[in-house]
Amino acid sequence: MFSVTERDISIEPIDAEWQAYASQRLDRLTKPQGSLGRLELIAQQLAGILQTLTPRLEQKAIITMAADHGVVAEGVSAYPQAVTAQMIKNFLRGGAAINVLARHVGACVIVVDMGAAVELPPHPALIVRKIGLGTANMATGPAMTRAQACDAIQAGMEIVEDVIQRGAQLIGTGDMGIGNTTAASAVTAAMTGAAVETVTGYGTGIDTATHRRKMAVIQRTLALNQPDLADPLDVLAKVGGFELGGLIGVMLGAAQARRPVVVDGMISGAAALVATALVPTLKDYLFASHRSQEPGHQVALQHLGLSPLLDLQLRLGEGTGAVLAMPLIEAAAKILCEMATFDEAGVAKRSS
Amino acid sequence: MFSVTERDISIEPIDAEWQAYASQRLDRLTKPQGSLGRLELIAQQLAGILQTLTPRLEQKAIITMAADHGVVAEGVSAYPQAVTAQMIKNFLRGGAAINVLARHVGACVIVVDMGAAVELPPHPALIVRKIGLGTANMATGPAMTRAQACDAIQAGMEIVEDVIQRGAQLIGTGDMGIGNTTAASAVTAAMTGAAVETVTGYGTGIDTATHRRKMAVIQRTLALNQPDLADPLDVLAKVGGFELGGLIGVMLGAAQARRPVVVDGMISGAAALVATALVPTLKDYLFASHRSQEPGHQVALQHLGLSPLLDLQLRLGEGTGAVLAMPLIEAAAKILCEMATFDEAGVAKRSS
Repeated sequence: MFSVTERDISIEPIDAEWQAYASQRLDRLTKPQGSLGRLELIAQQLAGILQTLTPRLEQKAIITMAADHGVVAEGVSAYPQAVTAQMIKNFLRGGAAINVLARHVGACVIVVDMGAAVELPPHPALIVRKIGLGTANMATGPAMTRAQACDAIQAGMEIVEDVIQRGAQLIGTGDMGIGNTTAASAVTAAMTGAAVETVTGYGTGIDTATHRRKMAVIQRTLALNQPDLADPLDVLAKVGGFELGGLIGVMLGAAQARRPVVVDGMISGAAALVATALVPTLKDYLFASHRSQEPGHQVALQHLGLSPLLDLQLRLGEGTGAVLAMPLIEAAAKILCEMATFDEAGVAKRSS
Repeated sequence: MFSVTERDISIEPIDAEWQAYASQRLDRLTKPQGSLGRLELIAQQLAGILQTLTPRLEQKAIITMAADHGVVAEGVSAYPQAVTAQMIKNFLRGGAAINVLARHVGACVIVVDMGAAVELPPHPALIVRKIGLGTANMATGPAMTRAQACDAIQAGMEIVEDVIQRGAQLIGTGDMGIGNTTAASAVTAAMTGAAVETVTGYGTGIDTATHRRKMAVIQRTLALNQPDLADPLDVLAKVGGFELGGLIGVMLGAAQARRPVVVDGMISGAAALVATALVPTLKDYLFASHRSQEPGHQVALQHLGLSPLLDLQLRLGEGTGAVLAMPLIEAAAKILCEMATFDEAGVAKRSS
């Protein structure tokens, strides 16, 4: 049991008995045993999470959390900080990649301002849970206070609980924030012990000189702040971001409510490293949607022991990988719910 | 230009100019350039095939072709031959994996009897284009005559042309047929020159002894029939199958009508080897849906120069991999059609 300020978080292990029932049912369906590969494993995991042989995932939500990062002052990004707020507006107008892909798979997009550097005009579809006007520059001190880290997690938990209350059955995580691959790389290095060079990529498409600067900034940040691997909240506070904190809360809150979570790429992967370190039972509620082009994501996936469903060389974030994987997870659920058994269909079983 | 009996087949190269237009448009959309990875390449390919910047793929059809194989007399499968006809009935009742997954992605399933070993009762949704009551045993002579091979291709072309006439915008290929991984392995070995051990897998889940027998049967078949790599129709006739011939026709007919084709696993991959050898311009109309667990499929993909979209350890066939990949291809089309540009959204471009 893990406590964020006043509340306790407790995530039950997924149900091995329901997983076994699902496995038995899958073996009676009209197909060679195991021939649907990973779909069968997903179906078993869903049965274990949802404690049913008829998992329903029609109601899908992608929670896209945005925030700014003080570390952009170090010149680590190809885009100006103003793009964070501009992209939030683009999300609200439905013109971004995440909107197009979410509509395509029938998911709704929940846009959360966890801490853009400017105040955005109110919008009926915008959830505002600003922890601050962007984090502090982690290259010169902690990105946020420990209290802010707890507040961010708390906000994420409350938001996902509300989304679940309104019917969401499958939760995806997404992010927006100029500079956030720098924070996510720092978190990934801190949580896994991997070298900065191994976890730092080209983000939105920086040039080689900026990439070298970005790695030096992360080195300096880690040396200065000394985040404590044994204290995941310390890592989040010192080298994380407000949207990372929010996404940690989303994962913890969803799993506490026994909902499967589809994890996007680099930023969500870093959040998952912290969240599973806080509550290890979370892991079995997570589905890794894709392998990002960001090298640190591969390190995170290995550390998490998660195998991605897609490898499409994406590096956009927003939750785009998560929504693209949702139809595969839903497909696995429907295999369990809708396929005929050998007996029902009058099909002969294998002769040997 | 290639001629099957009385008709000529001519497939135009895809349109490089439309591919370039698509590439330019993708670079103006609100995302870092190239950050949607393979989706952007798919979008360009679709633009080149369909000669438009607004490719529409709502109408999707999976053509699942079934037939029997005389080579099952050699004891190469774990299931009795009766399962082919039983599974056709299962397809028509909607209880098979392909039905569940096609419904999920909004595709219709076109079920074709290309040559089951028994006459099936008529069904309004069953297309009967029997080339014979199963192929002859290729371990003791050619699987079919050259005229039958041409008839099978012709049937596939006519079926896909009809499906396209009725509005299909995206075509997937699928198969059913006890013994057909044996034929597909033989075709793959013949068309690529790969060793029989490299291309022969466990099919529906045979045991080690049966696997050894299967490899020996394929060796014997190739030695006896001497299929001529330089004459793809000869390969199809001597060591192929009626559903393989039909699927070759589906691919050729769809590309001739400028429609994208989503290629399923091992059986469809073997058909693609023959089809692209007949008409090389076909290749750019093909999308490899997934990497099958069957080892020969990887050999076929490499020979075709196609990179699969999914790797889910599937080994079922029916078109299940093809339908699972359809939402990804449709997603790429929608990115091109629906995303806002930087100018439209008022988002700042990169600073460097």
